[in-house]
Amino acid sequence: MKEMNLQVLLASRPQGWVTESNFTIVEAPPPEPGDGQVLVRNHYLSLDPYMRGRMNEAKSYATPVGIGEVMGGGTVGEVLKSNHAGLKPGDKVVGNLGWQLFGVAAGAELRVVDARKVPLTAYLGVLGMTGATAWVGLMEICKPRPGETLVVTAASGAVGGVVGQLAKIHGARVVGVAGGSEKCRYVTEELGFDACVDYKAGKLAADLGAALPGGIDCLFENVGGEIFDQLLARMNPFARIAVCGLISQYNSAPYPLKNFGSVLTNRLKIEGFIVAERRQRWSEAFKELTEQLAAGRIKYRETVAQGLRAAPAALIGLLKGENFGKQLVKLI
Amino acid sequence: MKEMNLQVLLASRPQGWVTESNFTIVEAPPPEPGDGQVLVRNHYLSLDPYMRGRMNEAKSYATPVGIGEVMGGGTVGEVLKSNHAGLKPGDKVVGNLGWQLFGVAAGAELRVVDARKVPLTAYLGVLGMTGATAWVGLMEICKPRPGETLVVTAASGAVGGVVGQLAKIHGARVVGVAGGSEKCRYVTEELGFDACVDYKAGKLAADLGAALPGGIDCLFENVGGEIFDQLLARMNPFARIAVCGLISQYNSAPYPLKNFGSVLTNRLKIEGFIVAERRQRWSEAFKELTEQLAAGRIKYRETVAQGLRAAPAALIGLLKGENFGKQLVKLI
Repeated sequence: MKEMNLQVLLASRPQGWVTESNFTIVEAPPPEPGDGQVLVRNHYLSLDPYMRGRMNEAKSYATPVGIGEVMGGGTVGEVLKSNHAGLKPGDKVVGNLGWQLFGVAAGAELRVVDARKVPLTAYLGVLGMTGATAWVGLMEICKPRPGETLVVTAASGAVGGVVGQLAKIHGARVVGVAGGSEKCRYVTEELGFDACVDYKAGKLAADLGAALPGGIDCLFENVGGEIFDQLLARMNPFARIAVCGLISQYNSAPYPLKNFGSVLTNRLKIEGFIVAERRQRWSEAFKELTEQLAAGRIKYRETVAQGLRAAPAALIGLLKGENFGKQLVKLI
Repeated sequence: MKEMNLQVLLASRPQGWVTESNFTIVEAPPPEPGDGQVLVRNHYLSLDPYMRGRMNEAKSYATPVGIGEVMGGGTVGEVLKSNHAGLKPGDKVVGNLGWQLFGVAAGAELRVVDARKVPLTAYLGVLGMTGATAWVGLMEICKPRPGETLVVTAASGAVGGVVGQLAKIHGARVVGVAGGSEKCRYVTEELGFDACVDYKAGKLAADLGAALPGGIDCLFENVGGEIFDQLLARMNPFARIAVCGLISQYNSAPYPLKNFGSVLTNRLKIEGFIVAERRQRWSEAFKELTEQLAAGRIKYRETVAQGLRAAPAALIGLLKGENFGKQLVKLI
């Protein structure tokens, strides 16, 4: 008997926080690949904060997921059938096949990866969009010079952890901001950051002051809101800010920012970016990330939800900061 | 009988709005130039929004004026005595001699200007720091391409007027924001902007929507606050924002900005700048500004206060938007 496809569809648009009722799970026969396409059995699904934006109808940088459509997302899996000359059954491929067990895609849109050297999941993490995001924001926008101080928020997250370790490799002093003492311990003891500020400890201003006696030269921003506002006030002249995410703002009314004046008094550069629009730097990024990972200079942690039916709860947990490191869903 | 020097000193630091009691006016004998210095009789003093920041004790981009010190400011005047080989009595010079009738400065810090071709006051305006500010922010940060829409706030101001006219010359559609119908009429009818939004008309959102059907590609920001917040929400993907001033924020508690998320959704670039730190582009700026002014393609207006004793009230008026175009003080 042929295995059925399982798919998670967007059932309704969230008002504020995402709930499980915003999704519906359906069964369907696996699709058939057309000309130039391949059929893929997904092994892992990547969950990422940007997915929250796709659930809105509002104009954003990406087309929203339609009601009744399969939720989009990065996947790694195995080719089952191929109508594309460059791919054959058994090949391991990374693509954007979404929240489902089986998917079809044009062969040209898939990247063949080698599962013998590194675990398959790394291609959704350090060697995937996550790593490319960290590298591009750091190297194209933050541009830390040796001895400068870099701050990264959501420091124990999939992107934040890579940002900080790369910045250390390039000679910066690195301070993370994370929620909870366990995450901060991981960031300093396992990832090797110079310091970490626990924003849940209840004395944010004092802790930031202690960790940042010389101010901030580079900020890789993933969170936004009150923490970002306090960081703005600590920027040094000519500092750079890469705005990668504003996860604290995705589910609530926007936090009213009071310290924007720092942009003028400190002549800051701020740039928002989306890694998909900077593909011209990806091969350079993956080259360095592959080398550093192989050399043991980049470490990472994963939180793996079991089975596609667990994906909605796992995304909700990610948006609340309950995961640790890269959030994945195991599909096989 | 020798004329006495008159000087405006900073008497106290303002709390919120500047008042005349923050200044004191004193008489003193004119100073004597030392080695390499010249004595200048100032003819005009330039008043500019940045002066408000210098009156604070707080860290800013410039050293604050000390209590009891002469207020700083750009001046144009005539050399009376020279101990510098490159300057002789009668030379007209631009410098930073501050709020006083006579001043001494190192000859190397003064720029000799030609008062026969353009009025002396132009060297404090279009052909001075004002024009350089407009040119640098526009050409180095906003970088408007033909057909793009540029917005400039404080559009009838000394900087704003030059920004808009230069942007028109470079092919942009230009929309100004100014306070009052008279200023808006000036901006469109005399300076040739495509549209102007009067923020005092009481329907800012609707008027911005009507003037900006295609959104904003470049923003030259002089004001900050609520208007800036509304403009942020209208930025197009990959738009650029030059933060030149935030005059609405200098005398009050900071306006809480709600639309910072546009930086991410629209992948904006924002950059604060100070023209004094970009001197490497000044000669290029003055070359173009001189040509365009001579060709009649850049117009300007001046508000001239009479006599040094009128300077404090004129600065207060400038900070409240009561002036029209470049605010000067005539000293002779």
